[in-house]
Amino acid sequence: MTAATLSREDLEKVLWNVGRDVRRAMLHAVPNAEPHQWLYELVRSYPGRPGKAIRPALCLATCRAFGGSDAEAFPVAVAIEMLHNAFLVHDDIADGSEQRRGRPTLHADYGQALSLNAGDALVVLANQVLRRHARSLDPALADRVLDEFDTMAMRTLEGQATELGWRRDRVTDLAPEDYLDLILHKTCWYTTIHPLRVGALLGSGGAAPPPAMVHFGFYLGAAFQIRDDLLNLMGDELVYGKEINGDLYEAKRSLAMIHLGRAVEGDDSAVLHDYLSVDRPARTPAMIEGIRALLEKYRSIEFAHDYARGIAIAAMEAYEEAFGDCPESDDTRFVKALVPYMLGRDS
Amino acid sequence: MTAATLSREDLEKVLWNVGRDVRRAMLHAVPNAEPHQWLYELVRSYPGRPGKAIRPALCLATCRAFGGSDAEAFPVAVAIEMLHNAFLVHDDIADGSEQRRGRPTLHADYGQALSLNAGDALVVLANQVLRRHARSLDPALADRVLDEFDTMAMRTLEGQATELGWRRDRVTDLAPEDYLDLILHKTCWYTTIHPLRVGALLGSGGAAPPPAMVHFGFYLGAAFQIRDDLLNLMGDELVYGKEINGDLYEAKRSLAMIHLGRAVEGDDSAVLHDYLSVDRPARTPAMIEGIRALLEKYRSIEFAHDYARGIAIAAMEAYEEAFGDCPESDDTRFVKALVPYMLGRDS
Repeated sequence: MTAATLSREDLEKVLWNVGRDVRRAMLHAVPNAEPHQWLYELVRSYPGRPGKAIRPALCLATCRAFGGSDAEAFPVAVAIEMLHNAFLVHDDIADGSEQRRGRPTLHADYGQALSLNAGDALVVLANQVLRRHARSLDPALADRVLDEFDTMAMRTLEGQATELGWRRDRVTDLAPEDYLDLILHKTCWYTTIHPLRVGALLGSGGAAPPPAMVHFGFYLGAAFQIRDDLLNLMGDELVYGKEINGDLYEAKRSLAMIHLGRAVEGDDSAVLHDYLSVDRPARTPAMIEGIRALLEKYRSIEFAHDYARGIAIAAMEAYEEAFGDCPESDDTRFVKALVPYMLGRDS
Repeated sequence: MTAATLSREDLEKVLWNVGRDVRRAMLHAVPNAEPHQWLYELVRSYPGRPGKAIRPALCLATCRAFGGSDAEAFPVAVAIEMLHNAFLVHDDIADGSEQRRGRPTLHADYGQALSLNAGDALVVLANQVLRRHARSLDPALADRVLDEFDTMAMRTLEGQATELGWRRDRVTDLAPEDYLDLILHKTCWYTTIHPLRVGALLGSGGAAPPPAMVHFGFYLGAAFQIRDDLLNLMGDELVYGKEINGDLYEAKRSLAMIHLGRAVEGDDSAVLHDYLSVDRPARTPAMIEGIRALLEKYRSIEFAHDYARGIAIAAMEAYEEAFGDCPESDDTRFVKALVPYMLGRDS
């Protein structure tokens, strides 16, 4: 008899195994060709660094939960993870980030121009992996999977554009709903909604995924992103793998920051305003500490924590609807266990 | 009775018509969605600017010359031009260019982060256009066309990586053969070889393109690129649409520069060395004029001119082999007339 829930340890074992297999497959998909030092060495860099592998693991488990096999979903999971790596390369350039997965970002190592180009190559290679696999599928299902992939990519780029636009235009008049709409595009489509939908599609041989799948994916992805923002504020840099406070230096519009913007009063408003109205290089460590103190004072971090907990409850309800027709298995237990895991993870 | 050759005026009319139709189709392929001001407005920018349209025109004419119709090749031509626009956006960021098609570059108008993201969206949309069309083709032909598209994209990124790598690592020990190998990857694959090959594939309903097609495409594309480099050195900025001397400020390894590097003697070597060993911002107008004087003194520009003429002769021979089995038509005359046009164009 199997346990009704999956321990955190077992869940991390699944993630670790999937991560290892997907890394291997990504590196295998990169041509062993020239120019090595200016392109393919760069292309291999992020795919070779152990990541969380939540996206491919979610896709594979969902495919199996809906009756499919790993062979049907694995290359799709690899393509998702490769596109994710492409976006990481480009996002790190756009954000001027210094660290990724515990090592210098690609542009810190190779400069911006070569890294931008290597990110483009990862996009093309992700498409190649997906398309080659699509040939083995029923043509209508293949079209559907490829369409979903393009849609997912566009939603992600729309979200990224909005977040960058908010920052560039110093948009401050934002509510929690704006944040949710942002991360629906920027994070949830490619982190959770797409892996879930395409997993269900492949597993069931082309049946439309339950409508609740989008809701479940949205809540699960939102819990993931809110936690990610909190880790950037308070995490252990060695475990987290990115620089702590990076988001604060960028003045990223996280849920906690949006809460602060609406709660702040009196002289504190001027402190926040000064911080928001300068460019990143003008933000001093003292300024960052001042903002961090305000986030504490107005309980904005607590607000984000509570919000994530509420989202997780909604995710659990949506899970029951989305996976209600699937027989219980290690795979359904894994997907379900991801909900509390999103809240508790520290990297 | 039709003339045996196409006048430059008639050739430009073909390019203008194709350009107009392809622009319309590219803009039509961009969703009318949000975020407009941070994404889709940017995505529309380059596709809305009249370009030369050599790539789509070559693809369409070759398809017809091999017995096909416009309906078979048009979306492919649109996808090629869209990918070209995506690469232009990213190249302009990598090169720090200021002007494109007579207007400020995208990153000059919108900043680097949003432009990088918009370039990514153009890649995804180009793929979408191609894939949607591929559904209407015979599956084996569709696979072939999609494979060729991915290959073309990778060759282009390899070439771009090599050129950026040469500049970043201040590689100076280069011969004309290195330059030809560079532009084979960076320019010829997507400007000429791919449009020609895929046009022939579609026109003939899937027959393998004549092997001479790659040779013809290589020589035609090389003539195009050498001319482009020369225009950057000596063209009329208003007609050319990019900033003159941009390549000199970047210390681009053009054929003329490579010739100079091998010909330079005595004190002149130190002048060239000083110029190559600093970063772009440190290159003063006086320094640029000094290099330009050396290019004159050592007849390096003349060398590049002569080289292009030799390449054009080789292109004419390869044309006869590649298109030898096609009945003469307006389309074959157009393709043939592109050879002298590449050498004579001033924009």
